[in-house]
Amino acid sequence: MTHYAELAVRIGANVQPGQELVILCQTEHVAMARAIAREGYRAGAGRVQFWFRDQHLRRAAIELGPEEMLGRTPDHLLEWVGTWHETKPALIQLTGESEPELLSDLDPALVGKSEPRDVRALLAPLVSGCIINWAIVASPTAGWAEAVFGGPDVGRLWDAVAAATRLDDDDPVAAWREHQGVLEQRAAQLNERRFDAIRFRGPGTDLFVGLMPVSHWMAATFTTVDGVVHVPNLPTEEVFTSPDWRRTEGTVRSTMPLSVSGAIVRDLELRFEAGKIVHVSASAGEGVIRSQVESDPQAPFLGEIALVDKSSAVGRTGIVFEDTLFDENATCHIAFGNGLPMSVDGTDGLSTEELLELGVNVSGMHTDFMIGGPEVDVDGVDADGAATPIIRDDAWVL
Amino acid sequence: MTHYAELAVRIGANVQPGQELVILCQTEHVAMARAIAREGYRAGAGRVQFWFRDQHLRRAAIELGPEEMLGRTPDHLLEWVGTWHETKPALIQLTGESEPELLSDLDPALVGKSEPRDVRALLAPLVSGCIINWAIVASPTAGWAEAVFGGPDVGRLWDAVAAATRLDDDDPVAAWREHQGVLEQRAAQLNERRFDAIRFRGPGTDLFVGLMPVSHWMAATFTTVDGVVHVPNLPTEEVFTSPDWRRTEGTVRSTMPLSVSGAIVRDLELRFEAGKIVHVSASAGEGVIRSQVESDPQAPFLGEIALVDKSSAVGRTGIVFEDTLFDENATCHIAFGNGLPMSVDGTDGLSTEELLELGVNVSGMHTDFMIGGPEVDVDGVDADGAATPIIRDDAWVL
Repeated sequence: MTHYAELAVRIGANVQPGQELVILCQTEHVAMARAIAREGYRAGAGRVQFWFRDQHLRRAAIELGPEEMLGRTPDHLLEWVGTWHETKPALIQLTGESEPELLSDLDPALVGKSEPRDVRALLAPLVSGCIINWAIVASPTAGWAEAVFGGPDVGRLWDAVAAATRLDDDDPVAAWREHQGVLEQRAAQLNERRFDAIRFRGPGTDLFVGLMPVSHWMAATFTTVDGVVHVPNLPTEEVFTSPDWRRTEGTVRSTMPLSVSGAIVRDLELRFEAGKIVHVSASAGEGVIRSQVESDPQAPFLGEIALVDKSSAVGRTGIVFEDTLFDENATCHIAFGNGLPMSVDGTDGLSTEELLELGVNVSGMHTDFMIGGPEVDVDGVDADGAATPIIRDDAWVL
Repeated sequence: MTHYAELAVRIGANVQPGQELVILCQTEHVAMARAIAREGYRAGAGRVQFWFRDQHLRRAAIELGPEEMLGRTPDHLLEWVGTWHETKPALIQLTGESEPELLSDLDPALVGKSEPRDVRALLAPLVSGCIINWAIVASPTAGWAEAVFGGPDVGRLWDAVAAATRLDDDDPVAAWREHQGVLEQRAAQLNERRFDAIRFRGPGTDLFVGLMPVSHWMAATFTTVDGVVHVPNLPTEEVFTSPDWRRTEGTVRSTMPLSVSGAIVRDLELRFEAGKIVHVSASAGEGVIRSQVESDPQAPFLGEIALVDKSSAVGRTGIVFEDTLFDENATCHIAFGNGLPMSVDGTDGLSTEELLELGVNVSGMHTDFMIGGPEVDVDGVDADGAATPIIRDDAWVL
């Protein structure tokens, strides 16, 4: 735990001397949060604060509280996040649901309403504008291990997390430096080729995702406006960009279950027309996805496309983590909802309208789901329709 | 747990429809906090919020953080508490240390500095001015059970808590109504007698505590300025008042250990001259008490005196809970630090200077410790020096 905490603080968020560190987590994550707090202070943090969320409190509010209060974050917390533009704290979020299906028996519309969209709306520009240095890391718990392995084997889950995050390497920091190089090389390749679109083809999937001429592919490393280099996802195995929200067409079948909003979504299928999700189906959790897609006018359009092949340290574990941080780094994925302006040239200071005009989606949602795997071919498509293989048999071939 | 949560919400804080409920607790208390949250929503709370403290984070800050930040609560939380004068939330605080000696190996001066005095200073007028309805209740944990019984027997601790809080009665609410009547009868007796002082005599103790002509004895039930009747301590077995901070003389030996600031204080002895603590000794935790006594100019003066006899449901369990909420309700106690203006007539709207002039202490501290028991006689003393027995052989005899 200490090594992962160190990686989270030094490589992940890259906490600066004198900086405040805010750790966003659930009460079940308190042991990991404490380990990160100690590393944060060792790195010179001026103050470390915990910001706890609790899914049981959320459940109580949905079941027993007044509906009009759902999803309304207390004012003092919104005002606090509102100051982050100035104070620029480092942010580390812990992931790993102890009870991934805790909310699955509740009305999906109310669960959707209880999402803290107001906080997300304040955080989105801080992240997409590269104002703050941040990272998402995992906190294995007995409940999460239960969901993954069918038994509360936290030790086994820690081993899997260590393998997925290269903590089992003799020199994890060196391993990370090398790995970042590989991913950045892939992003450079894609940026050189300047494909007009990406096409996914496999069982249940025939999807065309149109790109923007002004977008570029990114990997692993972000740099804040103040020059703080950080790695927001640990693990990260993806190269990604913001697609043109108006240019997705076709159907896609998710290749892994998705843990979201206290429910597990299984066998998700979506159909897109002129960029928009026009059909949603799933064997479980369909209501939650529907509620998310309908949550604002731009939610049903794509905001992210990311490519991952079988060399992924996450994918190599062979484990379905039922946690997006891990599963999205096991294989290719897309996200509906908010786009990634940092992957699009000339977006500094643009308004929502200007971003949308350019092709960058703006929404209070951002839900990633996995669409890659051994049976899914990925091509780069030029403006004239010529296709170039990028991934075949789950291996990078560009 | 549900019954105690119900008692905390309905009898304790008496949460009102539409009111916000803030639950102040440690991460180890999350199960009890969730039970109270559900009862709070059932009682019509508009929103329930958790405010978690974490002793491990406090330890990390003391060991590894910058000293000048110790005890400085983040601004957004201070501003939030600053709004409570207007918003008037109900407040329920959970008690029960999971690791009561977690900070005992650290420099007591730094532990003292890390006390959240700024929050306490904001809360004190809300409580003493009866602005908010509030309650303190317990949350048994394995760690607390370990401290009390030498083994993590939470079930046994719950049984003890149930006995101490009359939850094991067939009709706990009726039992509470009856019990409140007994305590209020004692307060009425004392108010009729109008003693000039209270005297404690026993092994190591010969203490004279001078009262004010304008003070009165209170018990169990508080009423807010808006008329919300609540019972701030569950359990409560005491009748109490605010003594004249200038009029305590003599020596006192604590009759029970005291869990405070991450340390256990044992064999505490204090000497008072003209109201002031002029000597402190203890076989363990002396540094913590010293640091508290020196924390502000009025900290070394008494703020509370409370009488409890052996009929106490807490005392009858025969258990030393090593938790002030319980132990102070097992026997007579006094507190150095902040006084209780609600037990003094004509204190509405008085300034700090005016309160002090009247005899009511004002301090950022308030530390209760236990001084009663079978060997300690308690007398009421008239202005001419005549003494009347109040407690003999640990029984109320007035």
